[in-house]
Amino acid sequence: MAPRPRVDVNQQTAADMNAARSQTSINVQTVRNYLYGGQKVWDLRQRLEKIIVQEPLFDKQHRDFLGRTDQYIRAAAIINRLTELRRVHGWSQEEYNTASSLLSEVLSITLHDVAFQPVFLGQGSPALMENYWDLVHEKGIQGCYLQTELGHGTNVARLETTSTYIPETQEFELNSPSLTSTKWWIGALGKSATHGAVQAKLILPDGKDMGPHLFFVQLRSLEDHKPLRGITVGDIGPKASGGMAAQDQGFARFDHVRIPRTNMFSKFAEVTIEGSYIQPPHAKLSYGGMMYIRATMIPSAGWTIAKGRALSIQCNPKCNPLAAATVAIRYTTVRRQGELDAQGLERQVLTYPSTYYRLLPILSRAFVFIELGRYTIKALTQMQERLASRDTSLLPEMHALLCGLKVFVTTQGIIDIETARRSMGGHGYSAFAGLGRLYIEYLPSATFEGDNFVLDGQVVRAATKLCKAVLSSTSAVAELPLPSAYLRLLSTTSEAPPQVTASTWHDVHSVVLLLEWRAALMVKNFTQTPASGDVDANVNQRLARAITEAFVAAQVGEMINNLTNLPSEDARVVGCLYRLYLLTSAESALVDLLSVGLIRHTGAGDPTQDLRLAVKALCLEVLPNVIGLTDAFGFSDWSLDSALGVSDGRVYEALWKRVQMEPMNKDEVTPAYAPYIRPMLQRGQAAAQQKMKLKSRL
Amino acid sequence: MAPRPRVDVNQQTAADMNAARSQTSINVQTVRNYLYGGQKVWDLRQRLEKIIVQEPLFDKQHRDFLGRTDQYIRAAAIINRLTELRRVHGWSQEEYNTASSLLSEVLSITLHDVAFQPVFLGQGSPALMENYWDLVHEKGIQGCYLQTELGHGTNVARLETTSTYIPETQEFELNSPSLTSTKWWIGALGKSATHGAVQAKLILPDGKDMGPHLFFVQLRSLEDHKPLRGITVGDIGPKASGGMAAQDQGFARFDHVRIPRTNMFSKFAEVTIEGSYIQPPHAKLSYGGMMYIRATMIPSAGWTIAKGRALSIQCNPKCNPLAAATVAIRYTTVRRQGELDAQGLERQVLTYPSTYYRLLPILSRAFVFIELGRYTIKALTQMQERLASRDTSLLPEMHALLCGLKVFVTTQGIIDIETARRSMGGHGYSAFAGLGRLYIEYLPSATFEGDNFVLDGQVVRAATKLCKAVLSSTSAVAELPLPSAYLRLLSTTSEAPPQVTASTWHDVHSVVLLLEWRAALMVKNFTQTPASGDVDANVNQRLARAITEAFVAAQVGEMINNLTNLPSEDARVVGCLYRLYLLTSAESALVDLLSVGLIRHTGAGDPTQDLRLAVKALCLEVLPNVIGLTDAFGFSDWSLDSALGVSDGRVYEALWKRVQMEPMNKDEVTPAYAPYIRPMLQRGQAAAQQKMKLKSRL
Repeated sequence: MAPRPRVDVNQQTAADMNAARSQTSINVQTVRNYLYGGQKVWDLRQRLEKIIVQEPLFDKQHRDFLGRTDQYIRAAAIINRLTELRRVHGWSQEEYNTASSLLSEVLSITLHDVAFQPVFLGQGSPALMENYWDLVHEKGIQGCYLQTELGHGTNVARLETTSTYIPETQEFELNSPSLTSTKWWIGALGKSATHGAVQAKLILPDGKDMGPHLFFVQLRSLEDHKPLRGITVGDIGPKASGGMAAQDQGFARFDHVRIPRTNMFSKFAEVTIEGSYIQPPHAKLSYGGMMYIRATMIPSAGWTIAKGRALSIQCNPKCNPLAAATVAIRYTTVRRQGELDAQGLERQVLTYPSTYYRLLPILSRAFVFIELGRYTIKALTQMQERLASRDTSLLPEMHALLCGLKVFVTTQGIIDIETARRSMGGHGYSAFAGLGRLYIEYLPSATFEGDNFVLDGQVVRAATKLCKAVLSSTSAVAELPLPSAYLRLLSTTSEAPPQVTASTWHDVHSVVLLLEWRAALMVKNFTQTPASGDVDANVNQRLARAITEAFVAAQVGEMINNLTNLPSEDARVVGCLYRLYLLTSAESALVDLLSVGLIRHTGAGDPTQDLRLAVKALCLEVLPNVIGLTDAFGFSDWSLDSALGVSDGRVYEALWKRVQMEPMNKDEVTPAYAPYIRPMLQRGQAAAQQKMKLKSRL
Repeated sequence: MAPRPRVDVNQQTAADMNAARSQTSINVQTVRNYLYGGQKVWDLRQRLEKIIVQEPLFDKQHRDFLGRTDQYIRAAAIINRLTELRRVHGWSQEEYNTASSLLSEVLSITLHDVAFQPVFLGQGSPALMENYWDLVHEKGIQGCYLQTELGHGTNVARLETTSTYIPETQEFELNSPSLTSTKWWIGALGKSATHGAVQAKLILPDGKDMGPHLFFVQLRSLEDHKPLRGITVGDIGPKASGGMAAQDQGFARFDHVRIPRTNMFSKFAEVTIEGSYIQPPHAKLSYGGMMYIRATMIPSAGWTIAKGRALSIQCNPKCNPLAAATVAIRYTTVRRQGELDAQGLERQVLTYPSTYYRLLPILSRAFVFIELGRYTIKALTQMQERLASRDTSLLPEMHALLCGLKVFVTTQGIIDIETARRSMGGHGYSAFAGLGRLYIEYLPSATFEGDNFVLDGQVVRAATKLCKAVLSSTSAVAELPLPSAYLRLLSTTSEAPPQVTASTWHDVHSVVLLLEWRAALMVKNFTQTPASGDVDANVNQRLARAITEAFVAAQVGEMINNLTNLPSEDARVVGCLYRLYLLTSAESALVDLLSVGLIRHTGAGDPTQDLRLAVKALCLEVLPNVIGLTDAFGFSDWSLDSALGVSDGRVYEALWKRVQMEPMNKDEVTPAYAPYIRPMLQRGQAAAQQKMKLKSRL
């Protein structure tokens, strides 16, 4: 056996973290401000976090031990305190939103803030606004948004809940005609909300079905919180693996519930006192929530905007995949295992190729997605300005782009969180690592707000339409919308694709171009499939991914150009990350690149090897700065709430400390002993004694 | 708006399930017996399930509502009852194991059964056996297996716990010299176990460190269950996303704890009364648990056997990925959404290509893995027979194969469960769908019992060693061990790889050969990398996967040959599944097939298209039988415990029924209202009133 150095494994963790931090060559503050979009944003967050961490109610260390009901009650207490603090400190809407997001909690009030309030603001008639807006804004009532039903989700046209106009009393009558019309999955409906915006088919007195419209309905009494007559309401139960446990997703059934005519959200469509329908003047301009104007699948600008906002939230510097990457990189920096390094210590787990190959691309995507979120906000603002002047030309492309980005960012984010968790080996499965929670809370993003597989189809439809236009044009296409710039390559005047050599992978422009060519050729092949021809079963998924990755790659090219604003060392390291993003994007696209012939097997060895080695080389270039780069995300230990992600690296001490809080450890002897364990042992002991006796007799 | 047929969406579910079941062309019983390995096995399971479902204690419908402590107590009650039933019915070991597995619960007693008891049996000295075996076997004591420490997992050589022999008293003294030496992650240790098999470095009186050995240590009193003096023991807290909540994984520290000399598991290595070490006579023959003979990383036959057993358990016809596939296929059969079908109803979700393309390959893997599990058991038996006659020649290959299969089966199984869950859209995120639980309980298989990324390295090491031998041999290699049969292709006498055309994908032999060639060429390229050359960071993962898939493909070829034992229609349909497995295996290997030049871009369109269309065609061939095929797994509704997987298809009724059990729905008004929700609303109402007043004054 080789002689082993005597080290205290626990003390070594702090030494390793110090060493890793001290070799940082970037300026952490500069990079942090770059990620947050300026010192001001960061300062605001710091100021708010200082207030928040002082609240004992907001402590997160014990929430893993709570059952679901207690988690819901704790969240209600947090909401109450948060809205109190808002008044105490006179927070603006932005400050309140930031404070709320800093809590890292699933709160039912979020549905009021991001779904109910915007619908009210965007769709409420002047009369509704006059009577209710102050109550909505001040949270004198708590709202929710009731769209999905037990039987129908994405296909809004098939919702079954009806709202029938009764001219005699000037009322609408809401009704749930079937089991499957029960509203379902409605956040904050289960036990919290007092009011709701209900999607229901508008039925006119002549029986004509005008398709889904929105109605403002009181659900619970403001006196005692009891459900109003005719309304059956409750919680739909726990979610997969305890996800979003503190949230009361609910169901509701309406048994001929009457509301005044003025409770229709009628800013854009109205029913007159007599019962005739007044067409909205500008159908496409109506927005708010996940709104649809007619009973069709044409998404409105409102949906597009909501999706854009959701996306930008998922791309913030404190989003779940980023927190996961921070924890995993810190832990694998101080965790040592296996082979010996030059100092005779076991190697740091992060130094194994199979580890850094998994974790560093996550870091690179984190940087890219944060910048992408910023682009999205900018593009949305632009579109909203044009919408204000009734120009809807940007809408279809923006919608398709956001569908593609939503699928791409969420699918990848889910994979990345789990990859990070698994890179930590056994301890990653502890709740105290914190990644299980990050995963399960991020998970529904793949199926909520548009199932990713449905959205893929919409991306492909938009692309093929534009592609046909490009292919049928004999001249260069004058102006392609930015998200579809890659289609310029199909115009007759375009150059040939680049020849791939080892040096291709060191040239940003070439890699971007390859990813654009890949999308262009795939969309072209698909568009040209004869009507009689068959397409494979996964084609939408492959195409949507190629299209979205082409767009993102082009954006990353821009991001690299814009790095000149940073000090040179910071620009170099962040530039490495952006290039790593591009290369791993190309690596994951290898099947496509090979099958459309952009990379070819020439007989001289494996044509993918140059790319793979370039990925490894870039990883090694980034490696010395990983602790600095994750520090730049600005997570405090309070905010990360992970024993394995502690900033000082003392992971074993942190785990030990957390384990002492486990409620099962309060009793020296478990309450299960007397009724269950003891009887089993005693029966076994008696049986063994019996056998002994038998043996001794033989 | 198109006229819509008036259907009751809820009633339609049962009609759809009936229609799907009635179009089954296979004989469900025959296929079921094929999957279970005979009617007898099935009958035994049925007989035991009948007993189990009658026990109110084993009801699963309320467990989702329990907090962790209550889940642990419930599990203890179940164990107590299960061991009682064992006596009542006089169950054999096999019957007891089957009954235990049918419960689908995480039980701490499993660690006694599969880890502690085998160690005792395999390593216990005659004296230990004499004194304790009856107690162990009758569960008069409850054991656990203490290997992993806070600071070290896979690298057993670095465990820090010591066991020092004291000749004066003829005792060993167990000690935990550091924080990181704390035993950690030990199943059943937290609150249940009375005794343990402890891995500790054996220190001789002269101070010599003999590396890890196993010791039998009493942990808790048999009088009152209190921890014995010098032993600090407790639960390590909740796991990620509430996984294995009912299991009390624990920690333990030893403060100079003395045990008699005879408590060493000394069947193969012993310390004499005077304190000298007696070498084990046949080091490689020692087995049991996750045993290591010396302080090295050489895994013993015991580990190999344990891994094989674990693998075969994961491949049984009621394993988690299979349950997930059953639920998802049933639900997407009755869930209708989106486009209209020929009858004017919305399409069944399963009929969308993007859905069946995701679900049917999971079904195909299910069938393949069940058969693979059977192969594993057979190969293990063969190896054990040879070991009995001291022939260890099969050991290294068997070890490498099992490493590869473990990685492959678990990695794929985790992906498959989540893919199935996501295919169900929003409702898949409900706990009542049951897939969240299946996922989170299967998840640790990727990091426990050997981290998958570490195991990959062992697969590659074995393959390159053998590959070098093949390449340096001038004649055909006489006899390659079965798992490495693909390397025969590298011998000088081998034929050239097959030319790929559209018809290749319809020929089983060609597809198997392609997958074997892929592995052979990749391993060859890797083996021939010059010492100065660089390899990419992910090479072990890609190679291990290729090697394992080549072996599995060859086995599937055999499985297809053996289908002649089945009636022809059953053989045809199961054969379609096996071919689907092979084609999706090839599809996932496309990057490799293209980069080693087995498939080439010839300029005439996309060379991967034929394969992709063949996959789709096979899916469509299997589709009419999917309900029959999932029925053949033999899940009862009780066993699946999923509202979306109910056999009669009435998913909405089942969801509604489950939701009524939610404890939060017991109170009409939540207890959070008075202390938290009301104050928030009242403050908001007051603020709104204030604003109104101000406005009215203006």
